[in-house]
Amino acid sequence: MQPNSVLLVVCNTPDADTARKIASALVERRLAACVNILAPCQSVYRWQGEVEDSSEVPLLIKTTTARYGALEAAICALHPYEVPEIIALPVSHGLPDYMSWVLAETSHHEAGH
Amino acid sequence: MQPNSVLLVVCNTPDADTARKIASALVERRLAACVNILAPCQSVYRWQGEVEDSSEVPLLIKTTTARYGALEAAICALHPYEVPEIIALPVSHGLPDYMSWVLAETSHHEAGH
Amino acid sequence: MQPNSVLLVVCNTPDADTARKIASALVERRLAACVNILAPCQSVYRWQGEVEDSSEVPLLIKTTTARYGALEAAICALHPYEVPEIIALPVSHGLPDYMSWVLAETSHHEAGH
Repeated sequence: MQPNSVLLVVCNTPDADTARKIASALVERRLAACVNILAPCQSVYRWQGEVEDSSEVPLLIKTTTARYGALEAAICALHPYEVPEIIALPVSHGLPDYMSWVLAETSHHEAGH
Repeated sequence: MQPNSVLLVVCNTPDADTARKIASALVERRLAACVNILAPCQSVYRWQGEVEDSSEVPLLIKTTTARYGALEAAICALHPYEVPEIIALPVSHGLPDYMSWVLAETSHHEAGH
Repeated sequence: MQPNSVLLVVCNTPDADTARKIASALVERRLAACVNILAPCQSVYRWQGEVEDSSEVPLLIKTTTARYGALEAAICALHPYEVPEIIALPVSHGLPDYMSWVLAETSHHEAGH
């Protein structure tokens, strides 16, 4: 992976308000260039031995490898779950101008964050 | 890729009932730690020479490289399509506690599956 | 990555009509094997210094590394944004018959595109 490359981070939140709060904070702090708050989904998982399901709101977060650590820490601080889902997918190809925009929007020096 | 790492698997199903049936079976059998059943989507594809579209329900499945083969076989057995979409995206970064949870939830020894 | 491997491309569009127009054109021209038009999402981003949000329609596009360049050019020509989001995620595992189908559906010789 290149020194500083683009990542698509997937995170699930319990509801739309939490989704918006986290999405806005990540963009505000230049930890993400943009965040898509998807339509609500139904999540199926095991909890204390039983297969359960609940409604969640997925986030698709566009950030970089350089900002991933700070992004993860910020989500953990803002998210109500003890162990939220935060997984990052490497981007292998992309429109160069868009990739540059993501790098610029999340770069430190511009914002001092 | 590490010996046993986390994968995000994408699979599309024809309707919500099939989506729920597959999602529950995968978690029940510890082939997936969790499955998100997204809101219905519209799929565009070519079928017998014509560009067609139909409603589908996407699944986002969190599993591991070690369990991928068994997961694929289980989906094929449960899915009504002859050749369902099953594609896996490698996860390059993730919240360590979440990644460990995925590995634990899908590990053999706990369930003997 | 193998010489010609499957990619999952993510692109956001401003509305359902644009989403359908782009999805149909990509499949028609064999630049994509299939495209999922997801339910509308809310996108949060910075625009001229302010954190804003707007409704968008995400596309999940299944194509190959060999066709990615032509796919990117076609989306740019069809998309109303000056710099649309076009990012590609490498597929590390997949149902062999499905992967072969994606390669066949997007191969040049069959269509002369």
